[in-house]
Amino acid sequence: PEGLRAADYANYFSSYAYIYHQKQMLTDSKRMEAYRDAILGNAANFRDKVVLDVGAGSGILSIWAAKAGAKKVIACEFTEMAAHARRLVKANGLEDVVDVRRSAVEALDLEKGSVDIIISEWMGYFLLRESMLDSVIYARDRYLKPGGALYPSHAKMYWCPVALQDDRDAKLAETADTLAEWDAFEDEMMREHDVDVRVLRRPYEEETRDYCLRQAQWHELTEDVVQGEPVCVAAFDLNTITLGEAQGVADAPFAFDLPLERCSAFAGWFDSDFAGSPSAPASNVVTLDTSPSGGYTHWGQQCFFVDPTLVRDAIRRAGGRAPLATKGRLS
Amino acid sequence: PEGLRAADYANYFSSYAYIYHQKQMLTDSKRMEAYRDAILGNAANFRDKVVLDVGAGSGILSIWAAKAGAKKVIACEFTEMAAHARRLVKANGLEDVVDVRRSAVEALDLEKGSVDIIISEWMGYFLLRESMLDSVIYARDRYLKPGGALYPSHAKMYWCPVALQDDRDAKLAETADTLAEWDAFEDEMMREHDVDVRVLRRPYEEETRDYCLRQAQWHELTEDVVQGEPVCVAAFDLNTITLGEAQGVADAPFAFDLPLERCSAFAGWFDSDFAGSPSAPASNVVTLDTSPSGGYTHWGQQCFFVDPTLVRDAIRRAGGRAPLATKGRLS
Ligand SMILES: Nc1ncnc2c1ncn2[C@@H]1O[C@H](CSCC[C@H](N)C(=O)O)[C@@H](O)[C@H]1O
Ligand SMILES: Nc1ncnc2c1ncn2[C@@H]1O[C@H](CSCC[C@H](N)C(=O)O)[C@@H](O)[C@H]1O
Repeated sequence: PEGLRAADYANYFSSYAYIYHQKQMLTDSKRMEAYRDAILGNAANFRDKVVLDVGAGSGILSIWAAKAGAKKVIACEFTEMAAHARRLVKANGLEDVVDVRRSAVEALDLEKGSVDIIISEWMGYFLLRESMLDSVIYARDRYLKPGGALYPSHAKMYWCPVALQDDRDAKLAETADTLAEWDAFEDEMMREHDVDVRVLRRPYEEETRDYCLRQAQWHELTEDVVQGEPVCVAAFDLNTITLGEAQGVADAPFAFDLPLERCSAFAGWFDSDFAGSPSAPASNVVTLDTSPSGGYTHWGQQCFFVDPTLVRDAIRRAGGRAPLATKGRLS
Repeated sequence: PEGLRAADYANYFSSYAYIYHQKQMLTDSKRMEAYRDAILGNAANFRDKVVLDVGAGSGILSIWAAKAGAKKVIACEFTEMAAHARRLVKANGLEDVVDVRRSAVEALDLEKGSVDIIISEWMGYFLLRESMLDSVIYARDRYLKPGGALYPSHAKMYWCPVALQDDRDAKLAETADTLAEWDAFEDEMMREHDVDVRVLRRPYEEETRDYCLRQAQWHELTEDVVQGEPVCVAAFDLNTITLGEAQGVADAPFAFDLPLERCSAFAGWFDSDFAGSPSAPASNVVTLDTSPSGGYTHWGQQCFFVDPTLVRDAIRRAGGRAPLATKGRLS
């Protein structure tokens, strides 16, 4: 077999151990402004508090929490990036406040219920895709004091038909090309190797359609492609969400008053509120919005193309139920 | 954070559970011919034998072993591809001989020493990169009868300077571009967020150089770029290789009588022999050659660029020691 070329590329970008990757997040200005304003704009809430940063990366959120007046910040980071975070904290003169721990948050040994505020940037594509919400819930249940606050405190998922005719058609063409390769392959296997592979044609077709058409695709959408009013398909309160709820939305009914011809794809995105907790509300509530109308964020939007061959005649309007899980695909 | 776009692509291709990916291997004709001729061209060695296929994938090698007259073939495959292999075996009328087991070979429950021949296509880029040689050694030590044979039986790694000036220069330019982004980042972090990131400049430079210049790159080389005579830096006898030896080549001295100006990169590749075992030698010894002179295989060659800024004046000739491990990089 082989190790695969694309994997090198992916491992690089997906590895939080690279400054390069942390830098990409540090230059996402909507993201940065939301967290900065949520923390520094609510400094009174942070003053003299014990703060836990779940997945600290470069340590940026911990640095802001310290600047907001926190008594102590535990910056917990799993990868080697922890060493860089430590350097950065020191270079900014905050080493007496920020304690960088290289650890999975699940392996930390803090005193139970000793934390006033948890800060974390855990959100994945369309909120839950490859998100680390599980780890935040773990930290909340173990370390957050009763009445303590989470930043962010709430998150919502949105879903909307979008006009992406050209991209959809390109996907359909790519699917058709991949399917078309099969005939030559079947012939070659028989001619050169006397092996009959016809039995794999159907599974190959299913696999190709599944891969090409049912996997979510990253897009940076503009407002003009949005068809109709987005619906909120899930709303999470971080103060109370359970591990089970964090796995996905099993059943999200939606209906749009729209002819199917105008519905080449659905797009999903999220927003997050930084409202503090009921007993320690933020005075300046900040919202991080990743919708097409809000301008660029590195999250973009996740698009799911509608395969016209799968749409039954009976369906005249765009509607249905979408299971939206952490895998980034429609099932 | 985010789940990353490139990762989708990589997971797809790297996943042996996809027919698409198995098909890519099944259409690598040099690979196919070598295995086919090694098995069917030595049918006398396979007749009435018990054969174990380590990492059976689509089951192609098992099908050939059955056609060569094996009494029984255990086709062991870890991924869901096992179900497709079972279908393929049946469609070719070989279900009485080939027993497909969905399992890691490490978790099989065969009788110890019950196998006459192990067949496996385990070779990674430059032989060892992400290879599954460990699993083959495991299977050999546990299941192969004394005097039993491995197909392939031998493998060699080769190393040679190559003229890839343009690719090297493109890499250097990419490195320079990535490094150049830092200044603006440093300014922005200070201006917008009052955070001093200068302490990370040096680690960022090291990381960038390491990533851009020291990672091996896949190339499909032609003979004309090869500079001088390739040297064999390792020769493995599968009958006797140990797990330790399979981890890489700690120290491979080489010397080429060549001015450094002509040496913009080194390329590595391998060949494998199918010679049977000393007590059951193949009568038709087949060699699978992945060198630049042998024409296309999906393995191509792995190229390591020479960074001129790292080459000390003192070195006038291309020579040194290369640790060549499973990670696909020079250390
Ligand atoms: N269970 C876990 N424990 C500790 N760190 C984790 C973790 N899961 C993910 N991480 C880390 O969480 C980080 C998320 S990216 C966000 C980094 C930083 N807080 C910022 O906002 O810029 C990554 O660096 C990742 O390595
Ligand atoms: N430890 C292990 N046990 C079982 N299968 C393994 C394994 N490690 C890798 N594999 C499988 O080994 C296969 C190698 S690719 C080669 C497939 C097939 N023999 C052919 O020549 O076309 C993959 O399908 C992979 O899933």
